This record gives sequence, C-alpha cells and structure tokens, in this order.
Amino acid sequence: MVLKVYGHRISEPSRAVLIFCKINMIDFEEIHVEVLKGQQFSQEYGAITPIRQIPAIVDGHLKLIESHAILIYLSCSFPGVASHWYPGDPQKRAKIHSILDWHHSHLRRGAAGLVYTTILAPLNGLRSFLQIVIQAEEILLKSLSELENVWLKDGTFLGGISQPSIADLSLACEVMQLELLNEEDYHQILSPYKKVKKWIKDVRSATAPYFDEIHEYLFESQKGIRDQMATQSGKKKVRPKM
Amino acid sequence: MVLKVYGHRISEPSRAVLIFCKINMIDFEEIHVEVLKGQQFSQEYGAITPIRQIPAIVDGHLKLIESHAILIYLSCSFPGVASHWYPGDPQKRAKIHSILDWHHSHLRRGAAGLVYTTILAPLNGLRSFLQIVIQAEEILLKSLSELENVWLKDGTFLGGISQPSIADLSLACEVMQLELLNEEDYHQILSPYKKVKKWIKDVRSATAPYFDEIHEYLFESQKGIRDQMATQSGKKKVRPKM
Repeated sequence: MVLKVYGHRISEPSRAVLIFCKINMIDFEEIHVEVLKGQQFSQEYGAITPIRQIPAIVDGHLKLIESHAILIYLSCSFPGVASHWYPGDPQKRAKIHSILDWHHSHLRRGAAGLVYTTILAPLNGLRSFLQIVIQAEEILLKSLSELENVWLKDGTFLGGISQPSIADLSLACEVMQLELLNEEDYHQILSPYKKVKKWIKDVRSATAPYFDEIHEYLFESQKGIRDQMATQSGKKKVRPKM
Repeated sequence: MVLKVYGHRISEPSRAVLIFCKINMIDFEEIHVEVLKGQQFSQEYGAITPIRQIPAIVDGHLKLIESHAILIYLSCSFPGVASHWYPGDPQKRAKIHSILDWHHSHLRRGAAGLVYTTILAPLNGLRSFLQIVIQAEEILLKSLSELENVWLKDGTFLGGISQPSIADLSLACEVMQLELLNEEDYHQILSPYKKVKKWIKDVRSATAPYFDEIHEYLFESQKGIRDQMATQSGKKKVRPKM
C-alpha cells in the first residue's frame, strides 16, 4: 500500500514533508485535510490521529504525526533517500536533532505564533491578545538572530554542513510562513538577516522545482490575505493597536 | 576525556539527562550552571553554547544542546545503554520521536509555561500577564488529557511500550515540575489524570533510586517556593487576580 501523507499546503510542516517526498522520489498519495474548515475534527481523521494535527502519514500499519518524526522515519525507511538528508554518523545526526529540537521552542513558536495571532486568528474572527503577539514577536526576532549567528555561522546549510538536511527543509518552510505578513512587516523583520535570506534561496535551489511547486498555495494565499488584512482597520501592522 | 553534563537540577530537561546517565552507568561529570543567577550568560558558558540554554553536554569535540538530542546521542554512542531506551526498530523509534516532538509544543509549553509565569517570574520580580498564564494553563490541560488518553492509552509506558524509553524519562521530568505549584493547584490540575499519576510512579520505580536523588533539589525548593508564594498576596492561585 502506498504511503499516505495527510496535510494542507498552508501548514509549514506539511509543506516540508511533501517537498521531502517529491525531491526523494518517494511514491505517495497526498490527502488534503481542510484544516481551515475544521476537517481535522472529523470522525475519519480521528482514526488517523486522535491528536488531530497535520501532517500525518500512514505507512502500512504505522500512523505517525509530527513532521520531524515523519522526516526521520522516511529518511530511514525509504532506501532511495540521499544520506545527506539524515546522515548516519552519530555526531552529525546529533547536530541535526539539536537544530530540529531548537526549532520547536524557538523559531516555530515565534513564526507560527506571530502568523497565527496577527493573521489567521483575526481572519477567522478570533481575538488576539497584545501580550501574546508581543511574546511571539520577541521569540521570533531572537530565533532569527540565533539562526543567523549560530546555526548559519559556518557553511551553506544549518550546522555548518555543505548539503541540506531535514533540518534545513523544516526550518526553511517555517521562515517561508512569514510571507503571509504584510510586506512592510515582512521586510522589517527579515531584512537584518542576510545569511537567513541567502540560506532560504539555497534550500529553494537544492529542492527545485518542488520548493516552489509546494509553496504555490502560500504565494496564492498571500495576496488575498494581505488585501483582507489591509481592509481591517488598525490590523495592518504586526502589533494590534493599543 | 569524561563526558561533561552542564545543567541545573531545577531544570526538567537537565534532570532527565542526569537520571539517564546515572541509570545507564555512564561515567560523567556534572557541572552546575547557576541559571537562577544568570551564569548561562557568562563568557565561559558562551563557549559551550552561544544559545546559552541548559542542559548541554561536551563529549570530546562535540558540544550539544537540547535534551532530546542529548538523550538520543547518549543512547547511540554509549554501548552500555539498554536498547529499550531508544530501540533500533524504525517504527518503534518513530513513535518515540513523535512523542518527543509532541512534548515540545504541548506538554512542555504548558507545564514550563505555567510554572514560569506563575512561580519563577513573580519570584524574580518579573511581571506575568494574565493572557499568557491562561494560554499556558489551557495548553497544559489539553496536553495532560492527550498524555492520558492517547500516549498512555495502551500499556505501562508511553506509546504502548512495556519498558521505558527516553520519551518517558523526558516527559515524566516535565510533569514533576508541576510540584512547584501550590498544593491546591497541583491537585486540581493533576487529579483527573489517573494514568498519568500511575505512569509517573512507574517511571520513578524504573529509574530508582536516581529519579528521587535527582529530584531532591526540586522537593527542597518546593517548600520554600510555596511559602514565598503564599506570602505574596493575590498570587497564591495559578491565575493572577484580575
């Protein structure tokens, strides 16, 4: 039975898994879960994961959530995957795990937190609280600084490695989420981070043409979201007005 | 050169790494980093990790942060470690990665978030914001429910496994952090979760006597912290007064 990947292309971890499958020529079926309309709460999706998050995969009897765990599993279980994505050497692997773990509480919390509280929540009629927005923005800026000055200090890819790993793919998809912010905020947030911007281009090149193909939904959403947000008085800037 | 473990026993991921080293008879030197007094910002600690978080290990030329990455590295690099901590089978390993990843954005964010905003921040004269406390509490309660009903649904240990893995150790140390809350809040939060309470006992037994030995600092801190918090008018309950 072919590998099934459940996800939505608006979700950055879903995009990472989809790009990974395509670049490694893994045969899979993409199953769109309409999370923007609550399809993850359906009885059917509850049978895939009672935690009801995306992405998820089903491979034979295995049902698995969490994109990092999925990327590691695919790297180890599909023999066609090039070894640079998840090297066998324990020290190289440890660095990749370390970056992936750091991602959760730092870059992901900042980027996904800011996009959710300033874009997705208001567009869905949910209230955002100023202190939670400020916290997400602070975490994001600290994370981008650490990404630039620690993880991208040496070499083209994260952790000073010359070829991309699953950490590059996962974190690059996270930074791409910031494209949903309005143009002024986007440039203000990212412009100090030259290495981060170059690294995004390098990950995009290394995974061409799939990086752009899978991000097309995000780019299409960007214009509509920016227009909608621009019409909402006082919500155009990252921080809600006091 | 012997393995060096940098940490503080008030930190739940530091405790997980210390217990793991002891139960697996890994020869190591524990180096106390006085994070409550800002020692992680010293020039000396910056040479261990510019991200300045604990725990960290130094093993030969390898410097590594993030407790999950450390536990995986130790499991793979020290031959005396029993295989149940981090099984070689890709599907079993995938489940453990999945639980460890879930930990970051769910249980850890809720438990560490609540303890920080309601205990550690106020005790250090830092302001806590009501909405951030409420958010942490909501994430914690949802996480405990998923821990009880999903990860502990089948079997003694997480993911339906009969022997403890590094995920059990890591998540159990996280739940133990809640002991710093006042007694009423602690019991109110944990009492609905019978399987979680039994599982903590099972992890404690499986890692005896080291679990209690390493948690002694937490238990000693508990009384002092509860007394201090009780004297701070209006801050005795989890939620700050409106």
